[in-house]
This record gives sequence, C-alpha cells and structure tokens, in this order.
Amino acid sequence: MLSREDNALLTRVGPGSAMGSLFRRHWLPFMLATELAPGAPPRRVKLLGECLVAFRDSEGRAGLLGEHCPHRRASLYYGRNEAGGLRCVYHGWKFDVAGRCLELPSEPAGSSFRHKVRADAYPVIERGGLLWAYLGPAEKRAELPEFEWLGLPAAQRCASRWVQDCNYAQALEGEIDEAHVGFLHRRFAGDGVAKTALTGGYFREDTAPRYTVHDAPYGLACGARRSVEGDQYLWRVNLFLLPCFTLIPPSDDPHSRLFRAWVPADDEHTSVVCVTWRTDGPASDAELAQWRSGEVAHRKVIEGTATPVERADNDYLIDREAQRARSFTGIAGIRAQDAMVTESAGAVVDRTREHLGTSDKAVIAFRARLLAAARQLAHGIEPQAPYDPDCYRVRAHSGLVPRDERDFNEHEAIKRGMLAP
Amino acid sequence: MLSREDNALLTRVGPGSAMGSLFRRHWLPFMLATELAPGAPPRRVKLLGECLVAFRDSEGRAGLLGEHCPHRRASLYYGRNEAGGLRCVYHGWKFDVAGRCLELPSEPAGSSFRHKVRADAYPVIERGGLLWAYLGPAEKRAELPEFEWLGLPAAQRCASRWVQDCNYAQALEGEIDEAHVGFLHRRFAGDGVAKTALTGGYFREDTAPRYTVHDAPYGLACGARRSVEGDQYLWRVNLFLLPCFTLIPPSDDPHSRLFRAWVPADDEHTSVVCVTWRTDGPASDAELAQWRSGEVAHRKVIEGTATPVERADNDYLIDREAQRARSFTGIAGIRAQDAMVTESAGAVVDRTREHLGTSDKAVIAFRARLLAAARQLAHGIEPQAPYDPDCYRVRAHSGLVPRDERDFNEHEAIKRGMLAP
Amino acid sequence: MLSREDNALLTRVGPGSAMGSLFRRHWLPFMLATELAPGAPPRRVKLLGECLVAFRDSEGRAGLLGEHCPHRRASLYYGRNEAGGLRCVYHGWKFDVAGRCLELPSEPAGSSFRHKVRADAYPVIERGGLLWAYLGPAEKRAELPEFEWLGLPAAQRCASRWVQDCNYAQALEGEIDEAHVGFLHRRFAGDGVAKTALTGGYFREDTAPRYTVHDAPYGLACGARRSVEGDQYLWRVNLFLLPCFTLIPPSDDPHSRLFRAWVPADDEHTSVVCVTWRTDGPASDAELAQWRSGEVAHRKVIEGTATPVERADNDYLIDREAQRARSFTGIAGIRAQDAMVTESAGAVVDRTREHLGTSDKAVIAFRARLLAAARQLAHGIEPQAPYDPDCYRVRAHSGLVPRDERDFNEHEAIKRGMLAP
Repeated sequence: MLSREDNALLTRVGPGSAMGSLFRRHWLPFMLATELAPGAPPRRVKLLGECLVAFRDSEGRAGLLGEHCPHRRASLYYGRNEAGGLRCVYHGWKFDVAGRCLELPSEPAGSSFRHKVRADAYPVIERGGLLWAYLGPAEKRAELPEFEWLGLPAAQRCASRWVQDCNYAQALEGEIDEAHVGFLHRRFAGDGVAKTALTGGYFREDTAPRYTVHDAPYGLACGARRSVEGDQYLWRVNLFLLPCFTLIPPSDDPHSRLFRAWVPADDEHTSVVCVTWRTDGPASDAELAQWRSGEVAHRKVIEGTATPVERADNDYLIDREAQRARSFTGIAGIRAQDAMVTESAGAVVDRTREHLGTSDKAVIAFRARLLAAARQLAHGIEPQAPYDPDCYRVRAHSGLVPRDERDFNEHEAIKRGMLAP
Repeated sequence: MLSREDNALLTRVGPGSAMGSLFRRHWLPFMLATELAPGAPPRRVKLLGECLVAFRDSEGRAGLLGEHCPHRRASLYYGRNEAGGLRCVYHGWKFDVAGRCLELPSEPAGSSFRHKVRADAYPVIERGGLLWAYLGPAEKRAELPEFEWLGLPAAQRCASRWVQDCNYAQALEGEIDEAHVGFLHRRFAGDGVAKTALTGGYFREDTAPRYTVHDAPYGLACGARRSVEGDQYLWRVNLFLLPCFTLIPPSDDPHSRLFRAWVPADDEHTSVVCVTWRTDGPASDAELAQWRSGEVAHRKVIEGTATPVERADNDYLIDREAQRARSFTGIAGIRAQDAMVTESAGAVVDRTREHLGTSDKAVIAFRARLLAAARQLAHGIEPQAPYDPDCYRVRAHSGLVPRDERDFNEHEAIKRGMLAP
Repeated sequence: MLSREDNALLTRVGPGSAMGSLFRRHWLPFMLATELAPGAPPRRVKLLGECLVAFRDSEGRAGLLGEHCPHRRASLYYGRNEAGGLRCVYHGWKFDVAGRCLELPSEPAGSSFRHKVRADAYPVIERGGLLWAYLGPAEKRAELPEFEWLGLPAAQRCASRWVQDCNYAQALEGEIDEAHVGFLHRRFAGDGVAKTALTGGYFREDTAPRYTVHDAPYGLACGARRSVEGDQYLWRVNLFLLPCFTLIPPSDDPHSRLFRAWVPADDEHTSVVCVTWRTDGPASDAELAQWRSGEVAHRKVIEGTATPVERADNDYLIDREAQRARSFTGIAGIRAQDAMVTESAGAVVDRTREHLGTSDKAVIAFRARLLAAARQLAHGIEPQAPYDPDCYRVRAHSGLVPRDERDFNEHEAIKRGMLAP
C-alpha cells in the first residue's frame, strides 16, 4: 500500500517528473537492433512519455530524434531517410543522428540560420542486439550497464519486444513477485515438466515462499525460499536492477537465462524487452525455435509488430473450459498470464487500496528502493548504479539446499554464497 | 430547466455523491437471474459508477464483489469460480459471496492475515427473476420493495435487460412523459390497432394531455388526461417509484403489465431492466413470443448481450423513406425510438437550456421529488420509501371516463378511485 | 513562434472566444449547396465548435439550427423535414429556417407558449454553389464577400468539401506557405509538366523564395520571388483573406483558378471548401473530370462523405518505395501531402516550440494580422473587411519578370502592378 503521493511519484516518468529524472540517468533499451534497417523509413518510438522517431542512417548509425521537426513541427516519421540524415518533407530540412541541421534549403544560400536550429536528439548505442537510448543531461551520461549477455555472439541469444498496456512499475512487480508462480502459471495435468519449472511441482508444494530481500549496488536481490521434498529448500533469487530491469533465475536448465527490461513508453504503457541466452554456447535449433515461438519466455505478438496476440481487448483469448479443466487461468501464454494480472488492475494500479502480505516483501522493497532513489535525486543526490556499470554483472540463481542449513546466514547466501554469480 | 448545480445533483450517482447516497438506500436490480449460472465464470457489472463482478457460487448463491482483488488489485473477472467462492488467479486468494477471504495460500500456514482481508462485497437477493443488490451502509438496509410481480410464477412473466447510453434521469423522464406518445411512436398507416394502444388513435386525437401529478409514499402518480371520442376522457397514470422505477399503464389488455427499472450503471449509462407480466395467469405462447421478440415492450438486443441492435452508432438504423411514408421516426423499435430521443440529447442532457411547457409537469415533479429526497438525506433525513416495502404494491392504471365527470376530484381519482390498484 | 497565450488566442474559435467572435463577424461557407436537397433529411454540421443541423425546407430555403430541440434537447438530426420546417420527433415541435416555432402541438390549443420558444437559428445564404452561414450578432451582419467566382455559371466552376483533422490556422498556414512547394510536392521523374506547375522545375531551381508581404483591406498579399532561368524572377502572390480564405495563383493556365476556405468545424477540425473555376468560359470535359477526380486541386474523399481517402489513420497510404524512387513523400495526393504535414504536427500545433526562418514571413504575418484583429474586436474595434465586400474582388497572380527590374517597388508590384487583378 502506498499513499496517493507516493504512487504518483513511483509511476510518473514524463519530462520534469522526479522518477522520470531518475530514469533519465540510465541507458534504456527502446528497440531491437533488427527493427531498424540502414536507410529504412523512420519508426515511431514512445519513451518516458516523449514522442520520438528512430532511424538508422546510411552509415548504419541509429538516431533518435524528437518526432516533430523543429521548424513548424511536421512529423519526421514521414521524413526521408537520406544519405547522412533524416529530411523533413515539409521544407527539406535535414538532420543527422545528433540532431544537427545539415541542410536548410528553404533559407537563402549563406544563411547562418542552419546553425541555430537543432532537432531534439538523444544518444543511441547499439549493443547486445538492442538499441539503447540516453534521455538525460549530457554531463550526467554514464556507460552502458555491463550485463553479461551484452557481449555474447548473436547465436547464443534471442531478443524480442512487446508492449504491455500498464505502468512499468506494476508490470515489473509481477516479475519479481515469486509467490504468484504456483498459482497463475499452474497447469492441472501432470505434463512431465521438471519440478523446478515454473509450472512444476515445487511451486505447488509450497505456495507461501519466505522472502529475504537484500540491498545491492545494482538494486535488490529478492530471495524466495520454498520448503520442498520433505527436507530441502528451493531457493530462487530474483534480481531487480535499477531502474527497470529484472533477472529471473533459470528453472530447469541453469545455462538458459533470461533478462527483461520494463521500459516506460509513457505512464500507461510499457515497452518490454526480453533477452534469453545460453551461457555455455550457441543455442540449439530446438531452443531457438522455442524462444522464437513466443510461447514461454517471450510473448506471442502479431507478426511484425509489438502488439501481443492475447490482450485485454480480446480477454487474453481466455478459454473458460480450459480454465476449469486444464490450467489455472485458461489463458495460453505464460507471458499473457502475467500481462493479464498486471494490466487488469488498471493502467496505473491504485496502490492506496492494496492489502499486502508477507509474500509482497520484494514488491514493497522494490517500491521503497525506487522512491528513495528518486527522492534523493530530487534533493541533488545522484544515484550510484548508472555510474557503476560493473555492478550489473550479476546473475539470478536458484537451487536446492538441505533444510538443516536453514540457520546459515541467508543474506550472505544470497549475496555471495551458492546463489551468487 | 434546472440550474447547473441541480442538474449535477440530479444526475451524479457515484460513491460520495448526494444522489448516489439516496440510491444506496434502495435495492437495485442489476442483472437477470438467468445471466448468472451456478459455477459459471464471473460477469462484469457496472453499478452506480462502481466496477464490480457478479458470480454465482457452487451452492447457487449470487455474489457481487468489487472487481479488483484486495491484494494487488488484479481483476476478479478472470478469477476461478470454485467450490464456495471466487478465487483470484494471481495468488490464489479465495473469497465467498460475502467478501470473506476463505483461503490465502500465499501466506504461511497459521497466518492470521486472512482475517484482516475482505473483498468489497454487496448483498444480493434473487427475486422475480432478477438479481437485486444493495450498495448502502449495512445498518440502513431495508427489505425488497413489494412489487406485485415479484412473487408470480415464471410462466406469467418475462424479464430482459439492455444498456441505454445516457444518464438514468433523462432515460426515465422519457418513460413518465406521456405527451410524446402521440408523436414519437406514431405510425401513419391505419394498422387496426386499438385506439388506446400507444400507436392508436386516441394519442393522435388529443396531443396535448393535461397533467395532474400526485405525491405518493412510493414516489409520484402522474395522471395524463386526453379528451377523446367527443365526450370522454382517456386517463393514463404513469407511476414513478423511488429511486428509478416506473410502472406504465397497459394500453389495450389490462392484464398485461409492465415494470421498468432505470438503474444507473454510471453517470452516462443506464442498465434498463424490463419486466412484463400477466395478472390473470400464464402468458400465451403468442404473448411470450411477442415479449421475447424485443419488438415492443422489450428492446431488441444483440443475442447474448445487453447491447441494443438499433443504437446511436448506427443512427438507430433509421430508414428515412420509412420516416417519410410510414412512421414518425423511420426507426423500427418502439424502445429504440425512446432511446434515440433521450440519448441524442447528450450523455447528460444540459437542463439549463431546456424550455419546459405544461406537458412537462410530470418531468418537473420527478426532478423535484428526487432532488428533495437527495437534499434531505444529505441533511440526515432518511427517505421513507425504502423502509415501506408495501408502498410499492401499486399499479399504473388507465381508463375512459365520461367527460361530464370532469369536476370530480382528480387527485382522489388518481389516488384511490377508478385509477388506483 | 508564439507564446502559449497567443497560440490559444489564434486557435480557439468556440462561442465566447476572442477569435471566435472575429469569425462570427464573417459569412462562412459550411456546406456545398448540392449536399442539401429540398425536403431531404437534415444533416449534422459542426461550425465554430457549435453542433448544428442543416436542412432545406419544402420551399428550397436552407436552414441551420442548433442541433438540440429547445424543448428537452432531443437531436433535430432525427427530425422530420416537413412542409415549411423541421419537426422534432419527440413531441412534434416544428421550427422554420429562422428558428420560429410554427407548431407546438403538445401544449393546449390557444397556448401562447409557442411564441416564447425559438430554436437557435443562423442565417444562411446560398451563392456560388455553397451554403454560407453567419453566426454573429444580427446587428453586425454584413453582406457576402464579393468573390469573383460567386456569380459565375455553374458550368465554369467546381466545388468540393473535406475535413482536415487539425486546427484551421495551421491548415491555412500550409496554404499560404510558398517555400514548401518545391519539397513537399516534388516528383523525381521528369514528367513533362510546365516549369511553373507546383511539381515543375522552377520550384526546384530556387528553393528559398524571398517574401514580400503586403497588408491589404481583405487581409494580406504574400509575394514570393524565385530566381529562375538565369535572369528572371518567378513571382507568386498568395492571398490571405479574412478570416480564413485563401487565393493561390494559377500555375500554368492563368484562366484556371482556385479558392479555398479553411472553416473551423471546431478547434481541432477544419471543414475545407475548395472552388476551382475558369475565368474565360465553361470548363472542358477534361478539366471538369480532372477537378472531380480529387487528384490535384480537390481532395480525394470517400464517395458521398467529406472523409479523405488518404488520412492519418492509414498513414496517408504512404508508399515508402515510391518515396524512395518517385516522389518526395510517397503520398499520392497533393492535398493529402498538405494535410499530412499540417495534421502530423498535432491537432493544435505547439507554436511555442517552432523555429521560424525568413521563409515563414507570410505565416508570421498571417498570425499577426488575425491576432491584431481579434484583439481589436475584444476592445470594441470592429473589423473592416466584412463590411467592405468589394475588397474581396481580388485575384492571386503569378508571373515571370526580367531580373533587372528587381529594383522596382515590390510592394507596388504586388499591390497594383503586373500581379494585381
């Protein structure tokens, strides 16, 4: 439960907002690199409440400009992607990826006006198959966070993107929330999955995991402990990385891993970027096919778009008979199940009307961490995480430990023991 | 004509509004009993501006809960209707029809948290083929109003429901308004209908009925007198029953009767519940078929929904050639005609810009009655009607009387004479 | 660039606004005469933010009434167009084109109430194939402006109408803006068009026209001078006529001319009326066919509507391959190109964020002229143009002059020299 004021502080990320300022200290992935071909027409991008257009120039550099031409504000979405820059079709003004006006042919030759005009432009870096943007002040710009998968060969990873129709915070809360797994994703038929799989037996065996949340330079390590098989603990540690990233531990195969970014498009829409990768070499054809199917880690979208197939306006294609007989929700996609519970709470959930239990410890800590960071920045105290790229070099772990080790220091366990990277 | 303030007072019914508080002293029918099968998936309900879900549990009890789970506010619409209650699919919290939390499996065994959590829940009664809800404070809860048709065998009645896209007050005003009948519902071809039928000759013979409105415990008796056949009066007495019910007199067959409830879904939408019944025994197959056709007393809806076939976004399927040659409006359904004139005035009609005549006496009285009751309640004076269920045991009457009796006391006539039940 | 306040002053035209008051001193064309047949059903009209219905009575007179019946505000759009007037179908009240209540049959015979009731009604004049309305105070009503084409035989002209989804001011700015022609409308293939045609060579030869703007009784003459063919000037003078009219010079055929009215439907939609005509006699079948095709001067609309085929919600049917290879925009229609650049700036462009150059001189002058007139009227100083109908008897001219005449007085040249009517 939050006060109305804290809920607004947590969820509003537009220009000038306190949380928006915190997000503007971080690099954010806004698009897959493959979405933008060199010389191809520009694409519309909504990011932190700002209307932008992305394009890749003739030299392969990606640019991210304010959507509206600085002249009379025609949309650059309809512009021409020409050699060296994007040209507005209204009066032929041409801008490079840095927003510099290269040509201003509607003014007399020799006019110096061109040098006074700049398009709004944000720096873009391409890495790990993604396009990353930085929307903050130039003098505060940091390095990209050093996620382990950033440098992997393309054959070892798979990235996708979709839009979730709610605020980033409640979308992300659904990700670090461990307790829902045993309910929302449950299937009734024994289908031979591993007990540690999200639809597996361990999540039904103990439905009230005990949480231990540990503060960290990158954000939070949220450990959830389940009592299983009579004498063991299943530990799963979900990581929240500032400002809107998550690492969730593998279920059965420890080499198959997962990253998600919950990037605010605006206060009511989230651009979710998902990367899966193998730590031990190229993914098999079977694994690649599964990743690309959009059935498990990734979300099923309408071909060529970021629009999910299962969504609110079709009730997520819920099958009530399947809900009765075969699965907890009657909704097919794991990701669609997550989207349903978070989106159906409203575009921005009213956190003044919640009732949080001990299973919400990670969610509570997530809010507190972000609120504190936003408040500090509003008082002039810069965040540390963006300026410590190496702190992002972490992994989410899971594992079984004998229960008689329960007296060991759980914080230490999460921080550097069996569960650390 | 109303002031802007009075118009707002009359039309706003959400939580905390004065009129909303008055409505929250009354039981309101929100759904047909047949819309909710035991164990079937929950249904969304909008009532007095509140988002709710209705379900019928495994024992057949109907429940009406706030749409959002009290935990983290996922929609219970996607919930599982299980034995004894509705379960949220996010974390498996389960609630009974009274809002009690039956299971809270994401907390440790033995936790007392379950007893601190309640879903918003409103009492529901099933009677007369309808589901009735009470949204007010528990200590003010009354008995159901004693409408005569409530206890009839199902074979004697027929109920339907549809949504009208405007505020309840202007929808209801169109119902107690007697003067429009001779215009809006007029057909040009003599089609052999009784002179007293709504499309019959008497309504064209005298188009300026004289009104006598009588205050009553249940609300208002609105008598309209037409001079017909040279030496007679046609009296029709429409009843308004607090807070949003109407009884309209039969046209030709005095045993075939009609009730409507104009229940506010929110300030701009009305859930209209219509009940027709026979006072003298089971309806014939022909009459049942006519009722179910949605052509006359009931409204034609898209099969399985509460959405009318003829509606604003298709201009009510107006046929301009039919309007020229065959009927006053060119719109087929009698109910669609009523919906057109009330909806086309805007979602909430601007009553500061009306020009009311003597034919609007009933409409004026209706507003005054509701406004006074809402104002009184705001000053702590409880309404009487909800606590006098027997006062609803009335009938709307119509009849012909010799004109030389015109000096008799009309008020008395309406109250207890020829026209009373 | 404008301040926020000036931008609001320029763009808001609803009842009570300062600019709206200025517009309400002028006759405005709101519909083609052919859109309204005698005795035909009424049509909805949005004009200066007001909801209206237009109809033509049995005697052929056009009427323009407030949409809502003054009684209880049912829409007169559903009314009956009867002998002598429009009848509301709710209670049969009937109004003539002047708003007088001809019949009020729901009141007793002999009632004087009818004389107290008037529908909102605006004077309408039919001329030049258009219906013109005056929405201002009766005592300020002027004569129609004396456009030269008003009195022409129908065979010499062609009128059309479409809706543009943005404020009138930015739509009109795109019309008097001369500099965009060489970019927005450019085609790459030499297609044998005249050099003076909008897609012709002169507009590519000098893309930075020099502007000379001249104040005039009717509004502004906006002269643009291009240096072409080594030793000549191409002059084109676009006229802005108060409050929202434009005359653009012919390109190749001086006898084929063009008028447009940018009539505010509301603050975010413009009803564009376009008239083309020949000054020297009837148009040929080929020219008529071209006019009616909606491919050049007129806009292509969905048959029987004012809705353009190429519009924002289909990205103006942009063909990116055509944009690469064949034309500057990849959008087929010249008018759709104009609509794209003006609409894509937002419903009301944020003029606080513009960067205007010397090529925007006409646009700047247009705003200044309108803002001054609106401010003056707000201080009680009546505009002159509406009361000087003959000042509208002007023509937009273009022509080539030897460049060594460049020292002649350009203002005089525009005012009465080669370029004057």
